[in-house]
Amino acid sequence: MINFTLNPPANIGIIGGGQLGKMLSIKAKSLGYTVTILDPNPFAPAMSVADHKIIANFSDVESIKKLANLCEVITYEFEHIDADILIDLENTGHIVIPSGKTLKLIQDKYEQKSFLKSINITVPEFYKVTNKEDLINCSKKLGFPFILKSSKGGYDGKGNCVIKSPTDLDWGFEQLNSTNLLAEKYINYSKELSILIAIGKNKECNHYPVVENIHEDSILRLTKAPAKISPSIENKIHEISMKIVESLDDIGLFCIEFFLTANGEVYINEIAPRPHNSGHYTLEACETSQFEQLLRIVTGLPLGSTDLIYPAAMVNVLGNEYVNGAYQYAGLSKILKDDKIYVHLYGKKNTHYLKKLGHITVCDSSLSLAVEKSLNALKNLEIKSND
Amino acid sequence: MINFTLNPPANIGIIGGGQLGKMLSIKAKSLGYTVTILDPNPFAPAMSVADHKIIANFSDVESIKKLANLCEVITYEFEHIDADILIDLENTGHIVIPSGKTLKLIQDKYEQKSFLKSINITVPEFYKVTNKEDLINCSKKLGFPFILKSSKGGYDGKGNCVIKSPTDLDWGFEQLNSTNLLAEKYINYSKELSILIAIGKNKECNHYPVVENIHEDSILRLTKAPAKISPSIENKIHEISMKIVESLDDIGLFCIEFFLTANGEVYINEIAPRPHNSGHYTLEACETSQFEQLLRIVTGLPLGSTDLIYPAAMVNVLGNEYVNGAYQYAGLSKILKDDKIYVHLYGKKNTHYLKKLGHITVCDSSLSLAVEKSLNALKNLEIKSND
Repeated sequence: MINFTLNPPANIGIIGGGQLGKMLSIKAKSLGYTVTILDPNPFAPAMSVADHKIIANFSDVESIKKLANLCEVITYEFEHIDADILIDLENTGHIVIPSGKTLKLIQDKYEQKSFLKSINITVPEFYKVTNKEDLINCSKKLGFPFILKSSKGGYDGKGNCVIKSPTDLDWGFEQLNSTNLLAEKYINYSKELSILIAIGKNKECNHYPVVENIHEDSILRLTKAPAKISPSIENKIHEISMKIVESLDDIGLFCIEFFLTANGEVYINEIAPRPHNSGHYTLEACETSQFEQLLRIVTGLPLGSTDLIYPAAMVNVLGNEYVNGAYQYAGLSKILKDDKIYVHLYGKKNTHYLKKLGHITVCDSSLSLAVEKSLNALKNLEIKSND
Repeated sequence: MINFTLNPPANIGIIGGGQLGKMLSIKAKSLGYTVTILDPNPFAPAMSVADHKIIANFSDVESIKKLANLCEVITYEFEHIDADILIDLENTGHIVIPSGKTLKLIQDKYEQKSFLKSINITVPEFYKVTNKEDLINCSKKLGFPFILKSSKGGYDGKGNCVIKSPTDLDWGFEQLNSTNLLAEKYINYSKELSILIAIGKNKECNHYPVVENIHEDSILRLTKAPAKISPSIENKIHEISMKIVESLDDIGLFCIEFFLTANGEVYINEIAPRPHNSGHYTLEACETSQFEQLLRIVTGLPLGSTDLIYPAAMVNVLGNEYVNGAYQYAGLSKILKDDKIYVHLYGKKNTHYLKKLGHITVCDSSLSLAVEKSLNALKNLEIKSND
């Protein structure tokens, strides 16, 4: 393992200028680091809080090399980068966290599940699908309904289909339009859970509390921290998470999503090698936010405490059906009348239906009250057209 | 009083791009606002976290007008601006918070003290000095030592002299080199205290805890929150502060500095119409930081709670005697091993002796332990030459 410490004003390169990159940049800037963002969109949220900007596609090898040459370390805020470019950078002496090898493994869902299976982690039954014949064959093994996914590139439900009956097979295959697919058993879960786990340069490992996530239309709507689960389920999730990050043999901040069934079975859904929407609550509810934690990891600083200070509820602020393009908010005054309500708006130039525009976290000694307050706050936040 | 609410992404104009502007910008950006900074230094700390930059002198009328035309509200992070420019802006319909009238009153120390005296607030005995004859006359009234100050433009001890004996009179007059001076009785104080007080658009008024400040060479070194003072002194300070902000008949965030004598007398030292170095502890130790509070005020949002969550100590990170120009830090790893230690480094390009480069806040259930930890952290933070 590389032993390094980067003190300010070291330059940190972030591939991706979305809200995760923005919140990471803000923490880095507070600590006196320099930040360089690479993103094709010059108006991406992180651009306005960065020292240097590289406007380039994520597949632009020369621009990513330029970023590496400017920065002392590189990290990324999303998975859809050509991992081979990062591996090449590491081979020429650059530091990439998490490593290109880890990204390559995680970004292909079939490879990710195969890896998990190989280390004896319970994943839903899954098969590779490269053509319609594969699809028909595995539908016989999995039964209906089952999930068909693009192995690469999906997020927020994009690249996923539920195949409910044999008549959906052709439709699903055409929808996803790929020869790199994954068919997966449908898990009839009672809860969706996730955990953030941080592993630093000395292989010290801190996990955050297990949280419960509520999705609608495959988009995260609400995170409840902590999840109401039994100590034995919690322990199982800790054990699985530790085993995974140990097996990855890397450093970084990882989010692991789980399905919990009514009879207490735990299946892994996905791993993300970066800060995660379900970890936004850590900004106010934990001693060290997921963004500060990743900053500490990529600069070789000691990990911070992951203790939960208050129970918290986080709701996403999503674009509505009625406004497309430029927009403004209203209603903040009503929301901010109460204490311990934290509004984060990402400053995206345009909205569309279900686009992630921000989030609101509410801390309260009672989790159910926090949930209620967060949903109320969300109702009070209006998104209006600029026209 | 103007009744307004600015919802994101309204553009907030900040005159001054120093650390106060940076920390205010970061909060504004987190809430989805747009930020435009005006400063002559393109590398000023706030510049890298702003959406738009106007590189111009603080006396450049056209540039300040440009800022006003771009932004829905203007605020400032330091006093040394031509207040008449701001008053003109208000007369043409722009919103400036605090108002140009308030700034004009506060930025001239003689006018400030005369105002305080006029509303029956106890200030150290003071006289206007425009020539050497005035100086000799008032030295007879004040006795030695006394303080000679430039009425305008001083900060961090610059523009102040202690006149210890008649032989210092000529030296003091030459040092300050101005015909707009203020001679002030030397107060033999036992403690220096300060309080932040916020007043919003509906004239609602929230005060922060009274804190104790330790200066050396006229530069703030340590803030202890809360100050160890009797409830009666605390009440007296609350009453004085409320009276002042009510008399100013304005909105904004104000810091008021006091001298407390051994026999319990309270004298006002100075008012600042902006966030203050002695209020940095609020970032982690209070429900609402001074920067978020000012943001709420300038956007017409409700005031946030000023409750102290933990006792806290704040120490300034100052440039040392040995390094001039470009620099880097070392030692962060040691400091961040413990919890509840918060390091803020402003990202200034160059250092010099006693320049404010950052600050460290430590929260702890014991204030004396917080002080000890903060001084230790400061010792561990090295500032090294880039050579």
